[in-house]
Amino acid sequence: MFAPLQNDTFLRACLRQTTDHTPVWLMRQAGRYLPEYRATRDKAGSFMGLATNVDYATDVTLQPLERYPLDAAIVFSDILTVPDAMGLGLSFALGEGPRFAHPVRNEAAVAKLEVPDLDKLRYVFDAITSVRKALNGRVPLIGFSGSPWTLACYMVEGAGSSDYRLSKTMLYSRPDLMHRMLAVNADAVAAYLNAQIEAGAQAVMIFDSWGGVLADGAFQTFSLAYIARVLGQLQREHNGQRIPRIVFTKGGALWLDEMSRLDCEVLGLDWTANLARARALVGGAVGGPGKALQGNIDPNVLFAGPAQIRAEVAKVLDSFGAPHTDTRIDPATGEPLPGPTHIFNLGHGISQHTPPQNVAVLVDAVHTRSRQMRR
Amino acid sequence: MFAPLQNDTFLRACLRQTTDHTPVWLMRQAGRYLPEYRATRDKAGSFMGLATNVDYATDVTLQPLERYPLDAAIVFSDILTVPDAMGLGLSFALGEGPRFAHPVRNEAAVAKLEVPDLDKLRYVFDAITSVRKALNGRVPLIGFSGSPWTLACYMVEGAGSSDYRLSKTMLYSRPDLMHRMLAVNADAVAAYLNAQIEAGAQAVMIFDSWGGVLADGAFQTFSLAYIARVLGQLQREHNGQRIPRIVFTKGGALWLDEMSRLDCEVLGLDWTANLARARALVGGAVGGPGKALQGNIDPNVLFAGPAQIRAEVAKVLDSFGAPHTDTRIDPATGEPLPGPTHIFNLGHGISQHTPPQNVAVLVDAVHTRSRQMRR
Repeated sequence: MFAPLQNDTFLRACLRQTTDHTPVWLMRQAGRYLPEYRATRDKAGSFMGLATNVDYATDVTLQPLERYPLDAAIVFSDILTVPDAMGLGLSFALGEGPRFAHPVRNEAAVAKLEVPDLDKLRYVFDAITSVRKALNGRVPLIGFSGSPWTLACYMVEGAGSSDYRLSKTMLYSRPDLMHRMLAVNADAVAAYLNAQIEAGAQAVMIFDSWGGVLADGAFQTFSLAYIARVLGQLQREHNGQRIPRIVFTKGGALWLDEMSRLDCEVLGLDWTANLARARALVGGAVGGPGKALQGNIDPNVLFAGPAQIRAEVAKVLDSFGAPHTDTRIDPATGEPLPGPTHIFNLGHGISQHTPPQNVAVLVDAVHTRSRQMRR
Repeated sequence: MFAPLQNDTFLRACLRQTTDHTPVWLMRQAGRYLPEYRATRDKAGSFMGLATNVDYATDVTLQPLERYPLDAAIVFSDILTVPDAMGLGLSFALGEGPRFAHPVRNEAAVAKLEVPDLDKLRYVFDAITSVRKALNGRVPLIGFSGSPWTLACYMVEGAGSSDYRLSKTMLYSRPDLMHRMLAVNADAVAAYLNAQIEAGAQAVMIFDSWGGVLADGAFQTFSLAYIARVLGQLQREHNGQRIPRIVFTKGGALWLDEMSRLDCEVLGLDWTANLARARALVGGAVGGPGKALQGNIDPNVLFAGPAQIRAEVAKVLDSFGAPHTDTRIDPATGEPLPGPTHIFNLGHGISQHTPPQNVAVLVDAVHTRSRQMRR
């Protein structure tokens, strides 16, 4: 159905297999920092108009790949499509973050929540299939969703928040309601990601953007446990291909030890994490179990000059150290021997103010230096 | 000059000495959640009008102590008084955060920065002396400042920020300018805190509110190193009394190991930290070196009901575990034997929306349960 993959570097690194360079993609790589994105958005009229139109969504997904030799594409969409399909009414005012018309703030509203009819998310699956065709095997395509807790935050607050007061009030005063909402969210996210895989997503990522605002203890109970519930329901293979699962908790580096026990292939890290320490804790040894690590440069590095960008890229690559280069086949599995690998990314979404030419410097720096490191 | 101290629980806990209960105070305990605070602020006309008027500042500092049996007072002021004294023009629009009229964004502006004439901060020192008199020995008084990096963030951005883009652009593209600003800030903060100690502050706290937004590596270079520069200049004793120094980096739990090497008596923690782990890493053994720990309940717990507040307080106290109860005198120092101690606090400032009666529940829960734990 789809053309064979020409650049499998990203998928190999997800599976802790050897690659000749460190793959790189950028969270929110299709976005406002690109003038061609802004032009398409203007044509679409609104963010949701853009996300729900298959042709526009395909166009903007591919835009960064026309500029930069990125090693993966990520479908243009939003982390909050699932609660929108639940009927909460997602919108994006220009220059503002997401907003729900019908926030979920009491027992009656929570009781009404259910896993939405996936047909309401058909536009996402159609976009994925369309992008896969348009990519024509150039690089793999990533699908994604917000985590159950991150969805719940927006569902309760109705928008972004500086203190998550309403969500946490529900969490602390009515944990039963929060647990019910998270269970529905988890099952909905799992069904949503499985449908993305059916539609053509070659890897899936769970964005736990607000897990890091939780207290120790609450994070494990209200975010991590429901990420695990999602992961337990995801298909591991599709058409004979393994589908790597990436989990990214912003601010989650404190809980890396517990996150290492998640049933997923890749952990994303923000810039506060020390990659050397994370590799020691999570990366595993050659031939043994472990997870690939994704991250973690500060997106604000992209506001510096080319020399500083290259120096900061080198710091991040050096902090992880050389990925393993053992090309033997594991006789037990018949697969290449797994070992520590790194997928280069930002520690958070790229800023809309980023000069596009600086992204070219970053991508080139990752490719050039990571090839040198393997020699 | 001042009345003898009647409740030295907080100071003893800072010095890792035994106490019969866990002392408790709350960051921003004198603030907008109290109707009497709002009344005084209305009389003063503005936040800075309040902070710069000795009588008003004294009144609002004591207001929470009239309501709750807190174990410490903290002078009513702001973390940004130092850059204001440098001439940056601090103001607070109602319902908004701090704002500087003259942000520092280029080489010329950085070159002009210098340690301000401390006389411009006389209102803070006068307030401290006035509060000490008004306290009449009831509880100790804490003085404070923002950390050099936190001041620099506001000085560059001119206000709060969601991504610290301008500060980090300077950090990554012109680290020389950032280092110069931080050096001036550190020397200014040190002089400011020493003058607060002279005026009557019995402990001092450095609020590194934005240290946690830095990347691993950058935190150590641009925040921690300059906190160390401040600490190295602070007087350890005043009139024969030791002056404990508290360092609180919001989001700093990842770097606890490195922070344990700071020359200070107490480390503050936010709610993401695991107190048991922090105690094991930093708290030290009885008779050995270590630091007291301060924190770390999520302020949003105060939006739940009394039973939940008590349960969450118990979780935090139990996570730290029973403080040491060894009352022997160390023959080497002639001082009581130090050991692991805990000062109860929020993990961040109290929310303006907090119901005041819930604070009474929290303070009582800390006192009651921590007394039980020592039996």
